[in-house]
Amino acid sequence: MEVREGDYVLLRLDDKRKYLVRAEKGRMLHTHKGIVDLGSLVGAKYGDYVESHLNAKFRVLKPTIVDFVRFFSRGTQVIYPKDAALMIVLAGIGPGSRVVEAGTGSGALAALLAYYVRPDGVVYSYDVKESVLEIARRNLRKAGVADWVVLKRGDVTEEIEERGVDAVFLDLSTPWLVVKNASDALKSGGSFVSFSPTINQVEKTVEELRAHDFVDVVAIEAIVRRYRVKAGKTRPEMFMVGHTGYIVLARKP
Amino acid sequence: MEVREGDYVLLRLDDKRKYLVRAEKGRMLHTHKGIVDLGSLVGAKYGDYVESHLNAKFRVLKPTIVDFVRFFSRGTQVIYPKDAALMIVLAGIGPGSRVVEAGTGSGALAALLAYYVRPDGVVYSYDVKESVLEIARRNLRKAGVADWVVLKRGDVTEEIEERGVDAVFLDLSTPWLVVKNASDALKSGGSFVSFSPTINQVEKTVEELRAHDFVDVVAIEAIVRRYRVKAGKTRPEMFMVGHTGYIVLARKP
Amino acid sequence: MEVREGDYVLLRLDDKRKYLVRAEKGRMLHTHKGIVDLGSLVGAKYGDYVESHLNAKFRVLKPTIVDFVRFFSRGTQVIYPKDAALMIVLAGIGPGSRVVEAGTGSGALAALLAYYVRPDGVVYSYDVKESVLEIARRNLRKAGVADWVVLKRGDVTEEIEERGVDAVFLDLSTPWLVVKNASDALKSGGSFVSFSPTINQVEKTVEELRAHDFVDVVAIEAIVRRYRVKAGKTRPEMFMVGHTGYIVLARKP
Amino acid sequence: MEVREGDYVLLRLDDKRKYLVRAEKGRMLHTHKGIVDLGSLVGAKYGDYVESHLNAKFRVLKPTIVDFVRFFSRGTQVIYPKDAALMIVLAGIGPGSRVVEAGTGSGALAALLAYYVRPDGVVYSYDVKESVLEIARRNLRKAGVADWVVLKRGDVTEEIEERGVDAVFLDLSTPWLVVKNASDALKSGGSFVSFSPTINQVEKTVEELRAHDFVDVVAIEAIVRRYRVKAGKTRPEMFMVGHTGYIVLARKP
Repeated sequence: MEVREGDYVLLRLDDKRKYLVRAEKGRMLHTHKGIVDLGSLVGAKYGDYVESHLNAKFRVLKPTIVDFVRFFSRGTQVIYPKDAALMIVLAGIGPGSRVVEAGTGSGALAALLAYYVRPDGVVYSYDVKESVLEIARRNLRKAGVADWVVLKRGDVTEEIEERGVDAVFLDLSTPWLVVKNASDALKSGGSFVSFSPTINQVEKTVEELRAHDFVDVVAIEAIVRRYRVKAGKTRPEMFMVGHTGYIVLARKP
Repeated sequence: MEVREGDYVLLRLDDKRKYLVRAEKGRMLHTHKGIVDLGSLVGAKYGDYVESHLNAKFRVLKPTIVDFVRFFSRGTQVIYPKDAALMIVLAGIGPGSRVVEAGTGSGALAALLAYYVRPDGVVYSYDVKESVLEIARRNLRKAGVADWVVLKRGDVTEEIEERGVDAVFLDLSTPWLVVKNASDALKSGGSFVSFSPTINQVEKTVEELRAHDFVDVVAIEAIVRRYRVKAGKTRPEMFMVGHTGYIVLARKP
Repeated sequence: MEVREGDYVLLRLDDKRKYLVRAEKGRMLHTHKGIVDLGSLVGAKYGDYVESHLNAKFRVLKPTIVDFVRFFSRGTQVIYPKDAALMIVLAGIGPGSRVVEAGTGSGALAALLAYYVRPDGVVYSYDVKESVLEIARRNLRKAGVADWVVLKRGDVTEEIEERGVDAVFLDLSTPWLVVKNASDALKSGGSFVSFSPTINQVEKTVEELRAHDFVDVVAIEAIVRRYRVKAGKTRPEMFMVGHTGYIVLARKP
Repeated sequence: MEVREGDYVLLRLDDKRKYLVRAEKGRMLHTHKGIVDLGSLVGAKYGDYVESHLNAKFRVLKPTIVDFVRFFSRGTQVIYPKDAALMIVLAGIGPGSRVVEAGTGSGALAALLAYYVRPDGVVYSYDVKESVLEIARRNLRKAGVADWVVLKRGDVTEEIEERGVDAVFLDLSTPWLVVKNASDALKSGGSFVSFSPTINQVEKTVEELRAHDFVDVVAIEAIVRRYRVKAGKTRPEMFMVGHTGYIVLARKP
């Protein structure tokens, strides 16, 4: 497969240093290993190398949806793929699903959801701030999933307009205030899914879900351990991300 | 939404006791809380209750793909949804993906993959035993995803026939013996994904992947902690599944 | 070393089946592998085997303090050695330390503390129930550490009589109600240590410690993973104790 | 209690910044918050504050054995207190125990063992390098436990001179090569305890222990999670030490 003008490409120097760039004539990528002419990417094959002016070799890779998401608003907090993976699969979200999501933020969770509801599903993503939606719009376009996301300015603690949706995904500070509206929006059997950093948020959300007769209310935490593997010297990594957040799942009866 | 004759339904007594049954006239489900007439399910609405002859109430729920997989060959070892979720999402598998998978086993991983590659992707699932494929065939049909899985009798340590696939998923005892064939089958940028219970399998597989120039070789373990949440009395569950297996991910350059 | 009449001995059939017994003429141990004459233990050497009447072999071992504690009130909840170990060492408790402890319960934590403050330290162990103290008294005698424990009937949320102690250890349901009294009892630099199953207890205790100007306030959880080790087949145990409780440590300035 | 000339003192600025210093006339501590006259510590009470010339307040605390150990050879790898705590308590080491330990390294594990075998036990600590023993000697003196440690130059894979000891503690790269000598040195019922960063070391050591008829062979890993506790905002720390090493415990029959 060949890179075409305008395609996004992952340039990989090594396991730690990767660059998400656009193949475009006249554009340059400046790295500490030299300058790469991004125009030279056009016509390259995935798997090939391109060289910087200092002769450092960069592998040309096709970014996955997870690669795209990792580059959304670098620096700000973006949901971890490990958490999004569990949320999406345990809620049974897949091709054709209709999902409400809030808050949009950088669009990371919306992008992953959009990727999985393709080609005939849809994600309604709410955020209270127009400026945030603007950034998300750009990110979703870059990742090639903008067609499956309806960005909406609005506060889901006040109203969710959709009805009969398969799931409501929440990554905001007060998920318990959305339980009533989520219940109205969900079809029978639909999934409530929220992600929260603190245990107190979990406690409030679970209590509220029970008060609204949700079933199969589950609170979990996904911890991913990475290993440093070498023949005869294998061990878990010394430093790890010990906590990102808790996931609450429930089902509307 | 209404239950139609022949549909699979999840009957829920409580969080622990659920039954995956088929709505069918003349069939009965025997439980310790009495007998449920499965014919009475036809025409019921999801979210409704049906009653056993002892007046126990069972909620009628639409099973998700994860519910189906949990009921594949009860008793035998089936890949955990938490592991499948990470494997699928981190490998970027989604609608349209072409995936090779082995061994088929009960069909659990194949079913989840099939669910996610719909409607225009395909899963080629290999197993060495015809009898195993027969059980998987039945499970996949039950879960409604048989159309996206090509079951193949064959040994992937000897040959993988497909070329240019997006990913090779392995849940078998000697993944390192499949690295060469996986490399041949994968497109550039495609993902190698294996699941193994022991660290020794991980060590051998990672070494072999490096020897075949795979990049972004990662070995991880997903640990899911469940919480017992009650206002003022919240704590992790005392007993937990401490280990299912390790996931190895790599990318063909 | 030889077993003398009256000594407590650990009879070990295998890794899972061990019996804490007393070497005593005329006493018998009934097991599903036959009857062992406990009189025959007198004069045996540690490391020897004794046989049941069905010729099952039991190894004669000298119990450690941890072995004793594991046999205190079997069935009821006893603090785990992993938690006690961290509490004792991180608080710097050792030979000569003077420690207040509550509630006594089966005496498990008191026994371990007593073992470590020997030969010239002392443990003041409070419980509100006389009947509980009676059981603890017997357990402490059995473990050979009764001389270093002063069992006291009293409620530490109301009063701690001692002054200038090195540490206050709490294994009771409302540690935050003891913070004021612990502060009065502790010497400058002394350690407050509490063990609680729920995160809500931790939250209340930590807040109260800060309100009373304690420093180095730390809340931790110790998770111990066991491994099933076999050459080429090594993996963590599938089922594990996922949670016992949280430890709060703080220092009086 | 008052600080005397020559005493070691822990000066605490806040939870993260602590200094282990000696109260000595004419000596100064230079910090980014100003200079502290260490002579002024003499006669101060524990719990008091001293001020730097920039009026920063430092709390005067009495260091525990764990505080001392944390300051041994800062920068180099020292056994974590959490691991040492489990090793010591699970092996039943306490006042009066006789323990062999290798390699000495900075003396951290020897210091903790010495603290716990006081006043009538002893630690024989082996290292192959004289220069290492020299540093350890200084550290042990500083921590006030030198009287209970016999530092020995020697290679425990070749010989352990002691007999009938209560435990052999190993923190070196090839513990499996010491199993035979440890077995000779241990009394019946004595504990073999080793600490190793990699799982491969664990595998070799466990196999060797079984080959030498050790019983109760256990391989564990202690993971300590720290919590950030605030009323209504409690969560585990985001970054954590994910792995230090594995502990192998066994008993000589």
